[in-house]
Amino acid sequence: MSKLDNLLNDLVIANRILANEDIVDAYGHVSVRHPDDPTRFFLARSLAPEFITRNDIVEFTLDGKPVREEKRALYLERFIHGGIFEARPDVVAVVHAHAEDILPFGLTNGTPLRPVIHSGSFIGAHVPIWDIADRFGDTNLLVANVEQGQDLAKCLGPNNVALMRGHGFAAAARSLIEVVRVSVYLPRNARALLNAKHLGGQIKYLSQGEIDARSRGYSPYSVETWRAWHYWATKAGVGNMVTRPDAVVAVSKKSAKKTAKKPAKKAKPAKGRKR
Amino acid sequence: MSKLDNLLNDLVIANRILANEDIVDAYGHVSVRHPDDPTRFFLARSLAPEFITRNDIVEFTLDGKPVREEKRALYLERFIHGGIFEARPDVVAVVHAHAEDILPFGLTNGTPLRPVIHSGSFIGAHVPIWDIADRFGDTNLLVANVEQGQDLAKCLGPNNVALMRGHGFAAAARSLIEVVRVSVYLPRNARALLNAKHLGGQIKYLSQGEIDARSRGYSPYSVETWRAWHYWATKAGVGNMVTRPDAVVAVSKKSAKKTAKKPAKKAKPAKGRKR
Amino acid sequence: MSKLDNLLNDLVIANRILANEDIVDAYGHVSVRHPDDPTRFFLARSLAPEFITRNDIVEFTLDGKPVREEKRALYLERFIHGGIFEARPDVVAVVHAHAEDILPFGLTNGTPLRPVIHSGSFIGAHVPIWDIADRFGDTNLLVANVEQGQDLAKCLGPNNVALMRGHGFAAAARSLIEVVRVSVYLPRNARALLNAKHLGGQIKYLSQGEIDARSRGYSPYSVETWRAWHYWATKAGVGNMVTRPDAVVAVSKKSAKKTAKKPAKKAKPAKGRKR
Amino acid sequence: MSKLDNLLNDLVIANRILANEDIVDAYGHVSVRHPDDPTRFFLARSLAPEFITRNDIVEFTLDGKPVREEKRALYLERFIHGGIFEARPDVVAVVHAHAEDILPFGLTNGTPLRPVIHSGSFIGAHVPIWDIADRFGDTNLLVANVEQGQDLAKCLGPNNVALMRGHGFAAAARSLIEVVRVSVYLPRNARALLNAKHLGGQIKYLSQGEIDARSRGYSPYSVETWRAWHYWATKAGVGNMVTRPDAVVAVSKKSAKKTAKKPAKKAKPAKGRKR
Repeated sequence: MSKLDNLLNDLVIANRILANEDIVDAYGHVSVRHPDDPTRFFLARSLAPEFITRNDIVEFTLDGKPVREEKRALYLERFIHGGIFEARPDVVAVVHAHAEDILPFGLTNGTPLRPVIHSGSFIGAHVPIWDIADRFGDTNLLVANVEQGQDLAKCLGPNNVALMRGHGFAAAARSLIEVVRVSVYLPRNARALLNAKHLGGQIKYLSQGEIDARSRGYSPYSVETWRAWHYWATKAGVGNMVTRPDAVVAVSKKSAKKTAKKPAKKAKPAKGRKR
Repeated sequence: MSKLDNLLNDLVIANRILANEDIVDAYGHVSVRHPDDPTRFFLARSLAPEFITRNDIVEFTLDGKPVREEKRALYLERFIHGGIFEARPDVVAVVHAHAEDILPFGLTNGTPLRPVIHSGSFIGAHVPIWDIADRFGDTNLLVANVEQGQDLAKCLGPNNVALMRGHGFAAAARSLIEVVRVSVYLPRNARALLNAKHLGGQIKYLSQGEIDARSRGYSPYSVETWRAWHYWATKAGVGNMVTRPDAVVAVSKKSAKKTAKKPAKKAKPAKGRKR
Repeated sequence: MSKLDNLLNDLVIANRILANEDIVDAYGHVSVRHPDDPTRFFLARSLAPEFITRNDIVEFTLDGKPVREEKRALYLERFIHGGIFEARPDVVAVVHAHAEDILPFGLTNGTPLRPVIHSGSFIGAHVPIWDIADRFGDTNLLVANVEQGQDLAKCLGPNNVALMRGHGFAAAARSLIEVVRVSVYLPRNARALLNAKHLGGQIKYLSQGEIDARSRGYSPYSVETWRAWHYWATKAGVGNMVTRPDAVVAVSKKSAKKTAKKPAKKAKPAKGRKR
Repeated sequence: MSKLDNLLNDLVIANRILANEDIVDAYGHVSVRHPDDPTRFFLARSLAPEFITRNDIVEFTLDGKPVREEKRALYLERFIHGGIFEARPDVVAVVHAHAEDILPFGLTNGTPLRPVIHSGSFIGAHVPIWDIADRFGDTNLLVANVEQGQDLAKCLGPNNVALMRGHGFAAAARSLIEVVRVSVYLPRNARALLNAKHLGGQIKYLSQGEIDARSRGYSPYSVETWRAWHYWATKAGVGNMVTRPDAVVAVSKKSAKKTAKKPAKKAKPAKGRKR
């Protein structure tokens, strides 16, 4: 597989994982920037993520227009992705979803959503809440044009996640694997915080130093990160689609050689790297 | 399929979706008004919605009497449907169910149930609570005759949903697809509101303008609405039963032509319409 | 099948339903009194309810001794059943289980468990909490002898359900179908009450008159009751084991005749009776 | 099977049960001490517990080094296991996991986690919270070296469970079966306590005498304990791997003989012993 094929393959996997982990249902989507052209990104046509295959993926310019003629219906909210890719050159992948357990945190400022568990560190120290009404008044709450997408991206700023009032969230990350990880652990972090509030007393949030330490140690193809990706993909029924890019396998020459002979075990990671 | 066959086919799908999405269990039911005779409606015989097929559907007059001789057991609470269809000529489909997470909101006036998330907008700005005891005293809480059905419909008034104290809810909508959607998102909206309360602070409800904007944009066969119907039906094991009425497909001539040649892909929606 | 065979068949079904509905796990059990000898009852040998078949059922005297020589391990807590059958001649079936969502209500008197939803009416107006420590001091909390079983039965008194502090509940009813129903809806009623508390305001409990009205209308073979039994059994994979006793089928002669010709549809109930 | 083979077989079962019961996901692990050499222990290589087979098990010294040359990736946090085995000669098996519902109790001192339900008694009267930051400052929160493992073990002290702030828990027990049981019931006890707090009033915790009574009566191969192990293993798809050591079967000679003739029923336990 070419590098691009690999990426689109991973985009299909990402869709299936998000569906199986209950982050998306009929709605919600995940995109990835074109590896060779930062002004383009890939996103599925309008279809529930659980059903998406390679043929459903469409290439877009940053203003949400399909690069090639496209007769099939498109996601109304593709402008979320374009807006973030435009504003944030460092971002490679974006998720927008309505995962239920983050919704309460977008409805009130009573308890800001912040990382409390180690797997939640990647949401970042600050999670802004974007209220579409602040600038656009009474809408149907959907991000349905370039201007709205840009406004959301502006609110997101340099952060990893923005909550969208009464609607859901947008997450941005350095890779597909990372954005899926952020999205899966975001509701878990939200539930832990909500329930800790019930217990009373002072809540210990992750410190900035802890968040930074975890972020520094992160690599999408580390043993520990890869373990979750492989696990989630297998549970979602697409474990057979999981591949590791050559560049990464090459890090550990010996295991790469072994792996090359046994393609069925490609998913097995090299030893001792950091999560 | 004739228009009526199509509708009854959709009624079967609606039953299966509601069962699979945990809105109904052994109890709860969904009905649709006769498209050619507003004084009649269709509802299954007494059977758990998960098991219902075309042969289980019975035609009723608005006073809950079967149009044809019927030896099979009938739902005790069919008067809910008749009552609402009689009082509300604009209503095409009705659901009654006991979905667990809406029950608390019928037990107390402490926190009125109102839309807080965009997918909950269709429950409408005001959700009245009907207490059967107010007029009928100590009963078994079931809506077991015409008078009780009419009283519930009176409490519902022009709204989309009424909670029934200690019992469940009744939802009324302009189409089967919409009433299923309202019913599925009703408990989700309830959970989001309940948990937002835990977080403290001021809760931002959907504004009247937002509710209206979403209602205006709604069409049962829009791309976005259809996506959920198709998704839920597939998860419920009846994806193969999903069809789109010709009238709707015709909206987008080009895609309709393509679709006509590939009947297996009929579920695929036209492009760019609003949710 | 003889009347007794039918009953033991139903006892197997009851075990499977309780397992599938998450009322029991490896622990918890259901018993039924011998229809011809009120001094005996049937209960499985020590085995997780999900695995129980006809051969696992053992006949006991009220002091928890097996009627026939029995080499297989027995439930330690069979004395719960004997104690209740002895004290309550009106009781035909007993469940003991640890269903998670009722546990909080046995840990504090802060909010007594009472019926708030119509399907919870069968737990009865008063649900006492039995604390084994009150009379037996520091134990392992299990009801492991006749004296403890009798003490629990004394606390239960004329009620339908007793909570057991730090442990679970015991439910007693007029039939297997009813005791399963009480057990399945008990945690649901508990959750509805717990969440209503969160919403604030005054909670409306079922009135004594409502509880009585529902209890009067109850029959284990009514259309509505049967519908749930058939539904739960089917979901638990034992729908094929469901049968209706002749006596009941005879109530509706016409439908009984039809049914007799189509044994595969025996589960279908007669028309128009009360839940 | 040799005694060691049996133990490693049980270690595979333990992994599968913990995965199926949602105690671990891609992360979390379970270990067992070498029966003949207390300075060594067994733990899987870096792999999601749901996928682990006999070939994935690696033998370690207490400082977390593999006994034999090992090219496969290893769990970063194996030092948790080594640290506890070193400090606690009485401990035979260790679990580390992130089970969601215990997380809130590690985030605040508002409500200490203590046993409230009988199945939670094995977590012990006191559950300390270990905060890695107290001694190691800003880290990625993972226990990634010997010193951190020892510090955690020191905090655990003579207790059965330590919560790890913002991360998860470590549990230590006298056998694999017991450590699995503790881990499965730990979140259930946490939920019961959390929800009891919502109900208000004074919470009745298990008394020290009750905790002691249950601990005294505990045996990993008692009828009642075994029932859960067999049940969980079957649900996790590895029921066929369940075996009982000869020593235990011999306790009940008669049933042992019967069992010997019917190897397929080996899982069936002897009669009348305590949970």
